[in-house]
Amino acid sequence: MTDFIARHRRMLEDAVQALHARTFWTPFPEVPSGKIYGETAKADGEAAFAALLGQPFALPGHPEQRRLGAEVSPWGKALRITYPAADAPALIAAAQGAADDLASASVETRIGACLEILSRLNRISFLLGHATMHTTGQAFAMAFQAGGPHAQDRGLEAVAVAWTEMTRFADAARWEKPQGKGVPLVIDKQWTLVPAGVSLAIGCNTFPTWNSYPGIFASLATGNPVIVKPHPSAILPLALTAKVAREVLAEAGLPADAMLLAVDEPGAEITKSLATDPAVRLIDYTGSAVFGDWLRQNATQAQLFTEETGVNSIVIAATDDFDGMCANLAFSLSLYSGQMCTSPQNIYVPQGGIDTDQGRKSFDDVAAGLAQAIDTLLADPKQAAGICGAIANPTTQERVARARTQGRVIRDGTPLLLGVDADVPVAQDECFGPVGFVIPCTDADDGIARAAGLAATKGAITAALYDTDEARIERAIRAFARAGVNLSVNLTGNIFVNQSAAFSDFHVTGANPAGNASLTDTAFVATRFRRVMWRRPAAATV
Amino acid sequence: MTDFIARHRRMLEDAVQALHARTFWTPFPEVPSGKIYGETAKADGEAAFAALLGQPFALPGHPEQRRLGAEVSPWGKALRITYPAADAPALIAAAQGAADDLASASVETRIGACLEILSRLNRISFLLGHATMHTTGQAFAMAFQAGGPHAQDRGLEAVAVAWTEMTRFADAARWEKPQGKGVPLVIDKQWTLVPAGVSLAIGCNTFPTWNSYPGIFASLATGNPVIVKPHPSAILPLALTAKVAREVLAEAGLPADAMLLAVDEPGAEITKSLATDPAVRLIDYTGSAVFGDWLRQNATQAQLFTEETGVNSIVIAATDDFDGMCANLAFSLSLYSGQMCTSPQNIYVPQGGIDTDQGRKSFDDVAAGLAQAIDTLLADPKQAAGICGAIANPTTQERVARARTQGRVIRDGTPLLLGVDADVPVAQDECFGPVGFVIPCTDADDGIARAAGLAATKGAITAALYDTDEARIERAIRAFARAGVNLSVNLTGNIFVNQSAAFSDFHVTGANPAGNASLTDTAFVATRFRRVMWRRPAAATV
Repeated sequence: MTDFIARHRRMLEDAVQALHARTFWTPFPEVPSGKIYGETAKADGEAAFAALLGQPFALPGHPEQRRLGAEVSPWGKALRITYPAADAPALIAAAQGAADDLASASVETRIGACLEILSRLNRISFLLGHATMHTTGQAFAMAFQAGGPHAQDRGLEAVAVAWTEMTRFADAARWEKPQGKGVPLVIDKQWTLVPAGVSLAIGCNTFPTWNSYPGIFASLATGNPVIVKPHPSAILPLALTAKVAREVLAEAGLPADAMLLAVDEPGAEITKSLATDPAVRLIDYTGSAVFGDWLRQNATQAQLFTEETGVNSIVIAATDDFDGMCANLAFSLSLYSGQMCTSPQNIYVPQGGIDTDQGRKSFDDVAAGLAQAIDTLLADPKQAAGICGAIANPTTQERVARARTQGRVIRDGTPLLLGVDADVPVAQDECFGPVGFVIPCTDADDGIARAAGLAATKGAITAALYDTDEARIERAIRAFARAGVNLSVNLTGNIFVNQSAAFSDFHVTGANPAGNASLTDTAFVATRFRRVMWRRPAAATV
Repeated sequence: MTDFIARHRRMLEDAVQALHARTFWTPFPEVPSGKIYGETAKADGEAAFAALLGQPFALPGHPEQRRLGAEVSPWGKALRITYPAADAPALIAAAQGAADDLASASVETRIGACLEILSRLNRISFLLGHATMHTTGQAFAMAFQAGGPHAQDRGLEAVAVAWTEMTRFADAARWEKPQGKGVPLVIDKQWTLVPAGVSLAIGCNTFPTWNSYPGIFASLATGNPVIVKPHPSAILPLALTAKVAREVLAEAGLPADAMLLAVDEPGAEITKSLATDPAVRLIDYTGSAVFGDWLRQNATQAQLFTEETGVNSIVIAATDDFDGMCANLAFSLSLYSGQMCTSPQNIYVPQGGIDTDQGRKSFDDVAAGLAQAIDTLLADPKQAAGICGAIANPTTQERVARARTQGRVIRDGTPLLLGVDADVPVAQDECFGPVGFVIPCTDADDGIARAAGLAATKGAITAALYDTDEARIERAIRAFARAGVNLSVNLTGNIFVNQSAAFSDFHVTGANPAGNASLTDTAFVATRFRRVMWRRPAAATV
């Protein structure tokens, strides 16, 4: 049994500090460089990925009734990897079998194990990059970052919050109540942390690790066995995670079955069986509001932490850097072909045009500027592939094709830029994929009102504003805050509205329909366990 | 506009410290003494109460469509006080009208106002004692404590948690991300706290202030306007609270309508209309699981914080102080005629008897010992009235009368002690009121298993164990912890299982059906507001 917490104590302390300061910090470098990850890391990662293809994936000791797995890389080839699969009752039983030992382990043991899991995952970031690339369609550089270090950051953030929360109040106290001139009452009290129960993490196709790690690590750290249910098209990154986790858990003297993988097939998903099992008390879910609603209606025995559908908007009111703005937005619209929960969709531009450093620009000028910037960005096919990646799910292309009929094409291709009126239905809901709607508004304040209104009613994770009028910027800040959406103002250069940095940006606010949870705030962790006391007169324990 | 936070800064700091240390602390003395509260406090309180009787209760500026109020003291006389009443839409509109100003006030302003409200409530503790006595049926000493200082403690605890939570993370940060050899990215970020929405506090008949203050103050401190819906039989203590709160809010430059009183009539309650209004996003509820279930089914737009029905048990396994144990339990069973959510109900005694300092005692000996101790405690009618108080609600007497037919009378009167078998239905659910069931179990471990099993399935807020076998005490600690119920071991003398002290005992664990919330942990406060960010390049703000 290894003392993992001692090994990682410094990282934990730094993480806790960063968490509170919200400044830039990460222990997991985002650059896929041999200088950082070791000179052979790149080749090792490629070789390790190649060795997995066409093979049964080994998860020793994991429940296994059959083998499943039919992942096909959005980049073309079938992975032909099979995973151990078991039905919901078998997985629940295994999780319950692990529950007592996990619950009774010390906070230090669980936190130490989580930190070691993340550290080992970091070391295989190149392998995770390939696994993420070939399940999500992200280009390698993005897959490395989002599937590797950035996901690990988000996991670590959850562990740090869990640590602060579990150690927040005294776990023992002597309570001494004065009794006037009499002898004081002296009672000894102790508190035990009691985990909520089995935890289910429902992964998504596009960010299998980034979106799942917070829930997985928050639950595991607080003593809840986790069943990880990957999207059938994006199993490998989470299978690798489960493999590492199970190895570390065992080394830490904890049950390996505290982390289980629930592999299923499209059309025969076991998600609903798992989600409604009475033993499941925590569910972390990333996906559509439709299934989110199903969970709310049916998985009433569980606490639900969600990230769901939303409509992210940009309001272009004015700019003192027209080219910089267009270049920045071109990248935001193109990155991973709009398949990010943070990708902008609706772009509100005053119908009368805007003031810029290049003079007055009409609505059409702005639309053309955006289109031109996208063309420039994606002119080189290799660079275009590196930015846009591949489409993870065929339904995404169909959705964009349907949207196309509802507007005027400003720029064709990926991403598609459409001119639509503000009230056109397609712009009232999330249209997930590589499409942006350029929408005329009466004036900038009208655009702000429309964008904030959609955020409040339909949900939004990001909003962006370009403006030079400080009074209007103030009004926008208030409007978007009231709508519960994080706002980026006047981004140019190498920072984008899509980006959300662990330890600094809380991801999703929990304050509009795009999700009821925030990564990672106190609320995300606080109810995953409870405090239970016993007390007795002090004399009895002397 | 008064700087209330400066006035109370020391109290706030001490409260935060006590919160984390869980040791004894209170700024609100529980002794109804003129030396503490002022020589004329007792007479002033009596006079103030008398002056309210038969009069319209003044709440200047409060929505008022009619006057309602038909409280009758469980001690006999009708209060004949009328309160301003308005229908649900009018109250919601008034709350919404207060929302923006309350939300945009500084954390310091809101916390300062809450602390001032609690301090002023403390000064009228004698009046609150009379108001509580004549609405709940508690005897004066208990009504003073539970309705006054102890409730104020619980409110202060919630304010302290709200303060720590709202100030936990930086509210502004400069995020500086290295760019290799390039110029770092520098982004300024700011976070705004966004309250959840209108908050509804549904009060109960027996502890109108103690059970409502945590939710009221947690919501108000975090910026949510609060509609206080008292039980129609226990309005006055909350009306006094609202009056003080509205005065302080106005003095703090905050809208008085951030605290509203929703008075209604039995048979024409407006609770359901309020609870299901889309604007209501937070509900604090104390009461039956039946209405709790209704809220869960229907008030799906709101976060629900509940304290509900449960079955509190005592297991008597052995004792080295038989007389002390019986005297202690006699008081716990008699106090306020069992009308506490913490009152014990089921008393498990091994059918073969127990070891004691007086030698072996049979099951019947133990039952007789308890009955005798109650007789002794309540022998003097005046003392009996001071302990048992009066019955708040006629249905309580009817419930106990029905239970009586299902067991063998061990002690008649209030409290009633009945011998029943373990599987008798009446002992499987909460039978709220002055009745204890003495239940034979196979042995102590069987008693522990039954008590913990009921706690896990039906809920429980307290459990007690008397035992001398340390190994069995360890097993019991684990069993009750797993059932999510706080356990008191071997209490004798002047400390009772019914008692729950703010800043030390978390009241309700949230880990079994007796309630989903704990007073006052992080989770009770953390989701009452959200953090929303805006960020922009640092250069732009220089």
